[in-house]
This record gives sequence, C-alpha cells and structure tokens, in this order.
Amino acid sequence: MIDITDPAAGMVQLVIFTVDPARQQQVAVAVAATVEQTVAHRPGFLSATYHLSLDGTQILNYAQWASKKDFDAFVADQASQNTRAEFAALDGVRSTTGSAWCVHRTVTAGTAR
Amino acid sequence: MIDITDPAAGMVQLVIFTVDPARQQQVAVAVAATVEQTVAHRPGFLSATYHLSLDGTQILNYAQWASKKDFDAFVADQASQNTRAEFAALDGVRSTTGSAWCVHRTVTAGTAR
Repeated sequence: MIDITDPAAGMVQLVIFTVDPARQQQVAVAVAATVEQTVAHRPGFLSATYHLSLDGTQILNYAQWASKKDFDAFVADQASQNTRAEFAALDGVRSTTGSAWCVHRTVTAGTAR
Repeated sequence: MIDITDPAAGMVQLVIFTVDPARQQQVAVAVAATVEQTVAHRPGFLSATYHLSLDGTQILNYAQWASKKDFDAFVADQASQNTRAEFAALDGVRSTTGSAWCVHRTVTAGTAR
C-alpha cells in the first residue's frame, strides 16, 4: 500500500522515461530492480511506483521522499549520478525528465451531486 | 488515504496544467472544487490528487479510474468536454496535457543493502 496522502511524504519526484515501445516493459523491470537495490536505501526515500503509459512510449516513476532536503542530498551524491547515467544508457531509453511536486489536495468519489 | 496500489484502480490518468506561477494556487483550488462537484460523481471515478510543482509552473492531477472504459466514456461525454473547456479558459492556465497509465510495480524503502 502506497498512500499518496501520507503526511511523511514531504516531496514527490516524478521521473518520466521516454522509451522505445518494444522495450517499455524491460526498461521498467530493470530500473525498478536497480532502484530497489540502491535508491531504496537512501535516507528519506519512501517509495517509487512505476507506471507504464498505455501507448507504450513512456515509463513514469512516482516517487515519495521525506523532504526536498533528502532528495537534494541524494541527487548531489556521486552514486546517484552514476545510477542516472546507467538508466540513460539502458537499451531503449530515449530521454528522461524529472520534476518536483508537493501534494495539494485530494478529491475522492462522491455519492451525491 | 489514496492507495496507489489499490487493485480497483485499473487506470491512472495524469493531467498536467502549465500555469502562470502567480496563479498556480488559485487554479488548483478552482479545478479541484469543480472536479469535486462534477467528475467525482462519474461512474468509475475513484480519486483525483492535485499536486503543485515546486517551481510554480505546473499543476498535476494524478487521477484513479476503475477502468479505461469508464474513463473513455467520461471523456466522450459532452459534460466532460464542457469541463475541460472551462479549465482551459481559467485565468492563468496556459496549456493542458493528459496521459493514460497503468501501475507496473512499487519499490518501498529498504532496510538492508
């Protein structure tokens, strides 16, 4: 269970990989396996959830961090830079973009109009 | 609580609004309020979570639907088209893009390397 509204998640990082559709699934498997072995052990990392675009062209990682400070420390680290370079070099990866967010509010299914 | 891994969520729709940074907060409040009154009552709608980009330039809606079929029926509806036109016309909204996804897998914080 990954709770989007978890108050411990001070920052959300979105990473979108644009990929060759023929390799979408393999890239997602490889990236998630590496993150499980490396990034998942960094201070402040809470979760990473990988999504596949229905059109086959992209992979989205919705990642929760305890704080932007934790995330920035991770990004500045040499090991993190090596991991990003490794992902960029994966067969089928065309480009990668990241963006930082905070949760604003949630709307859930209503029962009365 | 919004569970990303909820098995009832058959599809995730991401909507990104690019906005004037001075109006990011107001646009998010207005869009979420409208969705609460309208889209939240559509069959198959599960949740919408609004995020603010830390750089002020975007708003992300991470929306869960029961199925792509439910989402497609919503999109085809005239009321849905009116809502999207209303959002596009909001003061401060520059552009909007949407994309459809399914959850692949989750990595959570590890305790041992």
